[in-house]
Amino acid sequence: MTRWAVKLEYDGAAFVGWQRQAVGVSIQAVLEQAASNLAGEPVTSIVAGRTDSGVHALGQVAHFYLQRDITPAKLASALNFHMKPHRVAVIAAAQVPPGWSARFSAIGRAYRYIILNRRGRPALAEGRVWHVPQPLDAALMDEAAKHLLGKHDFTSFRAASCQAASPWRTLDRLDVVRGPETIEIIAEARSFLHHQVRNMVGTLKLIGEGARPAASVPAILAAANRSAAGPTAPPQGLFLTGVRYETEIFDPPPGV
Amino acid sequence: MTRWAVKLEYDGAAFVGWQRQAVGVSIQAVLEQAASNLAGEPVTSIVAGRTDSGVHALGQVAHFYLQRDITPAKLASALNFHMKPHRVAVIAAAQVPPGWSARFSAIGRAYRYIILNRRGRPALAEGRVWHVPQPLDAALMDEAAKHLLGKHDFTSFRAASCQAASPWRTLDRLDVVRGPETIEIIAEARSFLHHQVRNMVGTLKLIGEGARPAASVPAILAAANRSAAGPTAPPQGLFLTGVRYETEIFDPPPGV
Repeated sequence: MTRWAVKLEYDGAAFVGWQRQAVGVSIQAVLEQAASNLAGEPVTSIVAGRTDSGVHALGQVAHFYLQRDITPAKLASALNFHMKPHRVAVIAAAQVPPGWSARFSAIGRAYRYIILNRRGRPALAEGRVWHVPQPLDAALMDEAAKHLLGKHDFTSFRAASCQAASPWRTLDRLDVVRGPETIEIIAEARSFLHHQVRNMVGTLKLIGEGARPAASVPAILAAANRSAAGPTAPPQGLFLTGVRYETEIFDPPPGV
Repeated sequence: MTRWAVKLEYDGAAFVGWQRQAVGVSIQAVLEQAASNLAGEPVTSIVAGRTDSGVHALGQVAHFYLQRDITPAKLASALNFHMKPHRVAVIAAAQVPPGWSARFSAIGRAYRYIILNRRGRPALAEGRVWHVPQPLDAALMDEAAKHLLGKHDFTSFRAASCQAASPWRTLDRLDVVRGPETIEIIAEARSFLHHQVRNMVGTLKLIGEGARPAASVPAILAAANRSAAGPTAPPQGLFLTGVRYETEIFDPPPGV
């Protein structure tokens, strides 16, 4: 009986989200079905971050038990074979100790949100960005973001459906970076509340278009009321880029 | 009667290529139909680079005539409206002088080719990369690429179907850049032969996996025979990133 961790990439547009739902295809179901096919018995998994429908992942992590002996490379290939043609891929696999959890051993989660900030609609990036045609001031957005750093009660940025015991979180990084046509928002914390990144992005977008001042952020936090912050940004611009653990469990990619 | 230039982005997977074909949807047909709807009469276009089926563009340029008066922003919006739901978008529009040609006034074309060089198959980047699971030596590929710089007879890298009068081209840039999981090949020249970029990439891939030495490139060029070079790399990793003119015709994007 070996505990395995896998690193996953997926296109969120193709799924109802990580978790199994009454209707539709979830990433969890695709992974567990592939692992069950391989194991010859039902396999259940635990995931680091339960992404919503439409949210993508470049480095999601999940774990599960397998009875049979197999190498990491063969496990990854076999899962990828069984998961076809779904738009999810195992990009690394590693054996982990019995007490290790993809969810509870995680000490950091990193997200990236991409706004396409140009008049023309996205052709190549459709479904991978939030298209905001009016010009946004990224410097103002970054100034506003800095007010969110550190430990706060993030009730104003928390979905009504959030099941976390506490609304307090410590935000380690929130950078707003302007590219030629995009604005990328990079967020890092030990953990996030449900919809926290998308609600922060929705608020920063209001600030970027001048609808609210950057200096309004402390009052939005202090209100501890969801209606004080901006609307929830759409899921398709959001990517779970990576999950951090005390000890790196996956081998580095061949090129590094 | 105004001559207009438009900058286009498209997802090549959705089309039979730039040019109209007997069967299937071409980017040319989608653009010309949209312009014709707007003009109320048939419109024909000239393009800078006739991309093949599966090849993407971030900065393709085409020109055409329109009778009616319109602003650049309104032309872009109207074309985008009429081109829906096809995965092509006008990202800029500009009036150009009567003698100006998207094709013949171009003094530089830039392409990027993306190889996903990791074991796991692409989930998010499916249709946007060439997946090469075995490790490639990007430094060797870059060394080989440097032999292709400058003015050469590129017959060995030219498709049988190529209609150019001369096989001589001057390659200004061919860089191979290693990322964490990708190898990007950036190619720039005044113009390219048909399949030239994909044939150069197919050859560099053989060198990267050790099937041929980097020093074999001068002999491949000297052979002036298509069978001396490697196979044609698949279209889905190729992006036309931009076209250069003596005078920049499009306004810079809002963020720059």
